[in-house]
Amino acid sequence: MTATVDAPTSARAGEVEEPPAGQDAVREAVLDVCRAARVASKALATATRATKDAALLAVADALVAQAPRVEAANARDLERGAAEGLPANLLDRLRLDAGRLAAIAGAVRDVAALPDPVGEVVRGQTLPNGLRLRQLRVPMGVVAVVYEARPNVTVDAASLALKSGNAVVLRGGSAARETNAVVVEVVREALAASGLPADLVSTVDEHGREGVRHLLRARGLVDVLVPRGGAGLIAEVVRSSTVPVIETGTGNCHVYVDAAADLDVALAVALNSKTQRTSTCNTAETVLVHAAVAGAFLPALLTAMSAEGVRLHGDDAVRAAAEGLDGVEVEPATDEDWATEYLALELAVAVVPDLDAALAHIDRWSTQHTEAVVTRDLAVAERFAAEVDSAAVMVNASTRFTDGAQLGLGAEVGISTQKLHARGPMGLAELTTTRWVVTGDGHVRA
Amino acid sequence: MTATVDAPTSARAGEVEEPPAGQDAVREAVLDVCRAARVASKALATATRATKDAALLAVADALVAQAPRVEAANARDLERGAAEGLPANLLDRLRLDAGRLAAIAGAVRDVAALPDPVGEVVRGQTLPNGLRLRQLRVPMGVVAVVYEARPNVTVDAASLALKSGNAVVLRGGSAARETNAVVVEVVREALAASGLPADLVSTVDEHGREGVRHLLRARGLVDVLVPRGGAGLIAEVVRSSTVPVIETGTGNCHVYVDAAADLDVALAVALNSKTQRTSTCNTAETVLVHAAVAGAFLPALLTAMSAEGVRLHGDDAVRAAAEGLDGVEVEPATDEDWATEYLALELAVAVVPDLDAALAHIDRWSTQHTEAVVTRDLAVAERFAAEVDSAAVMVNASTRFTDGAQLGLGAEVGISTQKLHARGPMGLAELTTTRWVVTGDGHVRA
Repeated sequence: MTATVDAPTSARAGEVEEPPAGQDAVREAVLDVCRAARVASKALATATRATKDAALLAVADALVAQAPRVEAANARDLERGAAEGLPANLLDRLRLDAGRLAAIAGAVRDVAALPDPVGEVVRGQTLPNGLRLRQLRVPMGVVAVVYEARPNVTVDAASLALKSGNAVVLRGGSAARETNAVVVEVVREALAASGLPADLVSTVDEHGREGVRHLLRARGLVDVLVPRGGAGLIAEVVRSSTVPVIETGTGNCHVYVDAAADLDVALAVALNSKTQRTSTCNTAETVLVHAAVAGAFLPALLTAMSAEGVRLHGDDAVRAAAEGLDGVEVEPATDEDWATEYLALELAVAVVPDLDAALAHIDRWSTQHTEAVVTRDLAVAERFAAEVDSAAVMVNASTRFTDGAQLGLGAEVGISTQKLHARGPMGLAELTTTRWVVTGDGHVRA
Repeated sequence: MTATVDAPTSARAGEVEEPPAGQDAVREAVLDVCRAARVASKALATATRATKDAALLAVADALVAQAPRVEAANARDLERGAAEGLPANLLDRLRLDAGRLAAIAGAVRDVAALPDPVGEVVRGQTLPNGLRLRQLRVPMGVVAVVYEARPNVTVDAASLALKSGNAVVLRGGSAARETNAVVVEVVREALAASGLPADLVSTVDEHGREGVRHLLRARGLVDVLVPRGGAGLIAEVVRSSTVPVIETGTGNCHVYVDAAADLDVALAVALNSKTQRTSTCNTAETVLVHAAVAGAFLPALLTAMSAEGVRLHGDDAVRAAAEGLDGVEVEPATDEDWATEYLALELAVAVVPDLDAALAHIDRWSTQHTEAVVTRDLAVAERFAAEVDSAAVMVNASTRFTDGAQLGLGAEVGISTQKLHARGPMGLAELTTTRWVVTGDGHVRA
């Protein structure tokens, strides 16, 4: 925090910048939402877990009870989306029916059942001079989540923020705007009915793209911003935001099949990592195969991938192995293939001479999300885990396990690929910070 | 990390930007230093503690053995500084004599004696499906430290970075450039003699201000940047850096004397917080006094502060209390006084009607560094600790205790006032990140 002070009516607004002329109304509206969130967050910072859990259960119940209201708004979004020519898969991502709402409500109840990170004593001791130290886990304060077109994120983000003692300001994009507006209303009503400030959950959707711009620059009012969406959204947020950002998940993930791999395991892991779901950040985009097992493994890999409809790119060795395989076509791979996160049924494959080469390829091309090794060799597994500079390393397991729920962390705010503050799947603890509380008896320094 | 890929010769250079024409030579030189640091860091990431400690002890010994060489360079900096009219206190900050070098070497040996954070298993479990999870503490990679004119920071930063498995790129400013250049040479020679890459420690000082600009934008090659210096330096770094920054310490710290305070403790804590050292970030800048004890306390506080040469600013109640006190002058306080981190023998004092008002004042004006409360009342102490949104809260203790060494954390990289990643004094663990290592037996997702 710099020593600049803004208009005294805004607490902690020391770094809010002056906007171009004409945007003042939108800017003030957005900052007002953030200020109200900040005030609300102070009430929640000291709330007991029981209070927060009761509110979450009320939110879950309200989502189910108000399903017709939500579905009606959702229908309007779907109608508009179809009219604007949204493809079927994107319309499907938008759709909320009674079943999906029930699942969302269930996820909220799951969050209520999680332990409360707030109040954890991360560490502490009594010093030789008698000072009693505690490093306490406390809420971040105000969390902003900027996401695209997935109404379940609205509730996910709200429930995780509330459980960890934070207020949340949401920006959900225009495709799901009617759905999100009603969902936020339902949540706010449930909070108020529980005796908590409705302003704990709010949205800036009505202010459109201009609103987001001011949200990104509300440093001092918003404590952390989590973008969830495609690489374009994330890059723009990282570039423009003065609010601290937790950069989530572009995943150019690799599976390395080692000389000592169990080839049946390798096939299962590679197939699952690529095809179990193709548009997620933890989907594998490149398979590296040790030359010693390439002859035995590539035919099975390429045939199985082709059978799943995966478009293949490979180096010369891979293309040579593909010759004579029915129904298998492998296009020549270029550097762009090694670099690309396809997010589709598409895969790049290379043969590597040894583990060193595999590690070098990964070091050069990965986005530091998740890399998997298939091997029976302990030293190889240990070296891979120690030297691959990614958020997660899988040993004889699918890259698809980099996921908060899969790793037992509870629901997930996103998967961080950065190194500071959070790395890998982000859960409740990542929405908190810490505070030192030092108690003395008049202690002073000599 | 975005999916952009830069020239393939640079590992992880996906986000390095194109510079204005003509700066290419400096930019390449700086990026080369960062690339070399990154390569060196990979060798250190898997080094045992024994290896790192031996290198640190070699560094300590070399600093002592090479003292004449360092002092000769230091003499040149002091001569130049005096010729350029540097004030005596700044010249003193630059000075390195045999005694100070011995103390610096001792601090390096202390770091060698600290536990190694690398390899800590932060958490882990075996999931119901049999997946074995570990969240490992691993080095950040390449740490950059940008600081001003304090040669001991050169060695501090290097020793902490090395101990935590990182390479470090330094920028120490022009005032101490000859000293720092020689110190870095001595450290590099000691590392090489210990069998580690000399490029683990390097400096971009020779490239001046232009060099720093490229260092700040070496996102992808440098993992974290720590600025240490005045508010101006920190603000500029935060504003310009695309490398993740850990914002360190402007401290507009408060001491709140509660209605239930032991007034002797209050006086001692207030005096120590303000005067024990005046130019540090954990120095108190404002004292708030509950109205119920103002009559009894203010005369003693104002008299004692004046006797220490502290220039006083106060609200009307404080000025009224000052009337009739010999040798005590209190200037009228404005909002600027509540906002200002004086970093001098200067203090703002206000009377507050109650705890709520004290908390509101702190919430509005603090830079979220350190706030102290003096009270005998348990509920007041608990509420203060729970509601003051700062990195550290002192209860009946001086604000000067917010310090890595004082809190038993070992040597200190800086004191963070941000909420993400590190909060309060930053030690070894804050120069690390984590990695999930998940081991299965061919596990795939359904």
